[in-house]
Order: sequence, then structure tokens, then C-alpha cells
Amino acid sequence: MELKKATYGIVGLGIMGGSFAKSIRQNILSQAGSSGKVLVCNRSTACLSQAQSEGVADQTFTSDRVAEMLPLCDVVFVCLYPHATIDFMKEHRDHFKAGAIVTDISGVKGIFEKSMPEILRPDVDFIIGHPMAGGEKEGYANSDAKFFVNHNYILCPSSFNKAENLDFMRSLVAEMGFTRITETSCDTHDYKIGFTSQLCHVIASALVESAEDPEITAFGGGSFEDLTRIAMINAPLWTELFISNKEKLVSHIENFEKQLERFKKYITEEDSESLRQMLSHTREQRLKMGSIRTVRK
Amino acid sequence: MELKKATYGIVGLGIMGGSFAKSIRQNILSQAGSSGKVLVCNRSTACLSQAQSEGVADQTFTSDRVAEMLPLCDVVFVCLYPHATIDFMKEHRDHFKAGAIVTDISGVKGIFEKSMPEILRPDVDFIIGHPMAGGEKEGYANSDAKFFVNHNYILCPSSFNKAENLDFMRSLVAEMGFTRITETSCDTHDYKIGFTSQLCHVIASALVESAEDPEITAFGGGSFEDLTRIAMINAPLWTELFISNKEKLVSHIENFEKQLERFKKYITEEDSESLRQMLSHTREQRLKMGSIRTVRK
Repeated sequence: MELKKATYGIVGLGIMGGSFAKSIRQNILSQAGSSGKVLVCNRSTACLSQAQSEGVADQTFTSDRVAEMLPLCDVVFVCLYPHATIDFMKEHRDHFKAGAIVTDISGVKGIFEKSMPEILRPDVDFIIGHPMAGGEKEGYANSDAKFFVNHNYILCPSSFNKAENLDFMRSLVAEMGFTRITETSCDTHDYKIGFTSQLCHVIASALVESAEDPEITAFGGGSFEDLTRIAMINAPLWTELFISNKEKLVSHIENFEKQLERFKKYITEEDSESLRQMLSHTREQRLKMGSIRTVRK
Repeated sequence: MELKKATYGIVGLGIMGGSFAKSIRQNILSQAGSSGKVLVCNRSTACLSQAQSEGVADQTFTSDRVAEMLPLCDVVFVCLYPHATIDFMKEHRDHFKAGAIVTDISGVKGIFEKSMPEILRPDVDFIIGHPMAGGEKEGYANSDAKFFVNHNYILCPSSFNKAENLDFMRSLVAEMGFTRITETSCDTHDYKIGFTSQLCHVIASALVESAEDPEITAFGGGSFEDLTRIAMINAPLWTELFISNKEKLVSHIENFEKQLERFKKYITEEDSESLRQMLSHTREQRLKMGSIRTVRK
């Protein structure tokens, strides 16, 4: 199957689904000789009309008609919350096209590895993937064809995936602009993402909760604003993510707390020498971690 | 004294001092009828030559000749570390021009309020101020005439300040581009800055220290990067800031730890309902705190 000749189905037209639709339209279906299509499905109709009028979608479906869309799609992006994605796969087991590739966007992966083998038809291939892009803005209105450019993508190949389908996904996400594609197990994914994403969201939220005063930003020079951008959090989604990855996340919180205690100890004891050494180490470590991404406006 | 007719002296030509020099040159001394001057003083000579050749400075002085510069200046910005600023004020007590305004950039203020009355000559007015701008970049090379535009400035008027000198400072920082000028006591400054700035630097540093792997950014979607930008920390400076504000900072760390414990408890107990409510509250609180600043590249 060629990228530019495939029919793509997007389930859920929020910021992620919308960005997939726009990115496929702009980066893949604009190529010479392209005959592919983008079909989109969403609960509310406002963004469906918009996607069609903007030329992003060839055909649109409300959620109650998704069973008509799925048999047409070679590739399906299920852009729903984690448990809703699993429920969707169960409910629509019999509606996928034979040979279809289905993929997700979820920030937790262990639950997929565990549940998919029991749910899937043998002729449908579910590829577990995580586009590492997001932001405090939501909805189709904030989606963008360039949303994934220079972002990381984590691919979690499973023993049940077909090699050619994995190759298809690798090419697809590279065409969308993802530049650092990491392949790893679901377990490692959940451990690392528990740190880089979930722990950070817990910290940002705890920091906002510890502010005594919403007027505190009069005293801000950028640090507090940077640390709490992600505290404009989608509560139902992150509740699900935190609890689905409970054990790994709690171990990261506890490790972070230990480091915080070290800093607190040195400050309390006015131990300048240990504090300076620790901060020098922090600076070196952070510099090793590579360049700082520019935050989107 | 008119802004555009004053002679300004900058002591320490790093990113802050350099930005003051450039901002005064561009925003104040470019005005019609201006006859003011910018004099700069620094330990190393490379940036002095650069400031002169760029037309930023009218005259430059190496640190050993600062006693020749100070008697010429109506306004002096001491852009050094906190304790170095106090030492500088002691050492050069007798070198300031009669009637001079002297100001600082330090991130802790209590130590100034305490020490200045004993140090100052009666005919020199020290105005305690905090330009809330910074970044992980350092040095004159990274200074910019627009560095302060749309940033916050905290002015801490003291009983010993002259009213007309405070007015002069208010006009001066407004001309430089600071848009939100807050006036408060040194004690309130240290309490609030202990939260928005110092606590955030401690958290960012503890987060980097709890990373097991500098390759972790392969799994980053922006959150970890945002939360740890400020962990590219200047170790000697922040050691001084943390310890100078020990009591207030430790109380903020402990309050933050309590909030973190609440999140950890809900996650551990899989208490989705409490977690969702808390995160909804977090989101509302964060939204009340106003718009998110765009990070400079």
C-alpha cells in the first residue's frame, strides 16, 4: 500500500485528530499521483462541516454513522481517550476493512498491549503509537497541518504487528514531520512517559495548587509561567492517564520527592558548598539533555 | 532630572547590565534633545570594547577604575550578585556623585533593606528594584535592548527614598518597556519571589536530578523541556539566592510538597473522582492567573 493512495479514517476530530487530517492532506495527499482520501468522524457536527469546507476531509460522518466509514478505510487513527479507544475497538470490531491498520494516540500503552490481542480480528492490525505533541489548547480549531513537525513519535511494535504495516507507519509519521522516532516496548514507554509527561503534569498542577493567590503572576518572570503552562489541564483525560499508569507514576513522584528533599536539606542547613555542587551537576545534566524546544504561541 | 539628560552608569555588563545599557541607549537617549550618557564598567574587557564599538556605551571602565566612573553618574545600576552588590556599595561608598540614584537587580531584597541604611551616604539614594527578566542564557552577547519589554518590574520603596527619585525610577523602567510595575515591601517581595522564582528553580532542578537518563528527551513532548528550561541554572548565583531567602523558600517547598502528596494519595488510591475535581480546580486556578507568556527563543 502506498501512502498517497490510502484511504485514511480519523475518529475524533479534536486537536490531534484534526492535525492528523490536515497533515495527511497537506503532506501526503498533495503529492503527484495521489488518489488517497481523508474521511473523518466526530460526535459534534460543527467541526465536520469546517473540515469539509476547508478541503481537509473528503467525506464526513457523525459518530452514529462510523460503522459506514470504517469499512472504507485502509488506515484508521482512533483519536479518543485511552479507555474510550479500547471501548471503540470492541464495539467496532466487525466494522473494519480486512487488512486495515488501526492506530491510537494514547499516552498510556500497557493497557493496549494487554487488551488488544483479545479484541482484534486477526485481519486487522493495531499499531500502538504515541505522537508526542499536545498543548493547553484543545479542539479542531487549534489543529494544524504542522502540529507534529519536529516532534517525537514513539512506536511500540507488538509481536502481532505485520512488518510491512510497521514500515508503513514509520513512513507515514516521518512524512507528517515527526523527526525523532523511537521504537520501544509498551512497558518502557509507560515508564519513560510516566516521567517526562505525567510526572511533569502532576508537578505543574501541585505548583498551581500551592499558589495562594491568582495574582501571583504580577511577580512572575517566566519561571512560574513555564512550569505551569501544562496545568491548564484536561481533568478527565489526565485522571485517566495518571490512574492507568499508577505504579510507574507513583515511583517517579517518590523519586522526585527524594531529590526535592536533598535540596531542602542543603538550603535548611545553609550548606552552600553541597548546594552549589548539586546545582552545577543539575546544569550539566540539563545541558546534556539537548536543546530547548521553543514553545508554540 | 530628566531621563534623557542623565548620565547612567552600569556596573557589570552581563545579560542584565548589557540589556539596561542597550535599552537606555535605544529607548531614552535616542529621544530628541537628549544629552545623557551611558558609562559602563566590567571586569573583563571584551564586552567593554563591544559596547563601545556598537555605540551602546559612551565611555567604558575596567572594574579597577570604577572609582573614576561613579562620580560622573546620576544613576547607577549595580548589576552584580546580591552579596557582591552589598560589598560594592560598602567599598565605593565615597565614590558616588552627591544626589545619585543607585539601584540593583537582585532577586532577594530583605538583605538590602537591612544593610543599606548603615552603608549609604545620606546624599545617595538606593532604590531597591527587581527587573523580572532573565533566562538560561548569560553574558553581554545575549543582552538586548528589548529584553525587558512586557516584563514585570517590582519596586520596593523604602522610607529613606526621596519621592522624586522614586518617580524617576518609575518613569525610567516604564520607558524600558516593563509593563506591569508592582510596588511592595521587601518582605512581600521575598515571599512572592520565593514562590514564583526560587521554588520553581528548586523544582526544575529536582526534576532534572530525578531523571535517570539524559536521553530522556527522546520521550519528551514539551512538558519536561518546559519544566526544566530554568534548570540550566547558574549555580553560584542561585545558591546565594536560595540561602539568602531560606525561611520563606523552605515554607514554599513544604507547601508544594503537601499538594504533591494530595495528588499522590488520590492516584495511589485510584480515587478518580477526587483527582478529577482537584485537576478541574487546578485548571480554573491556572486560567485565572492570566495568559501564558511566550518564551523567547
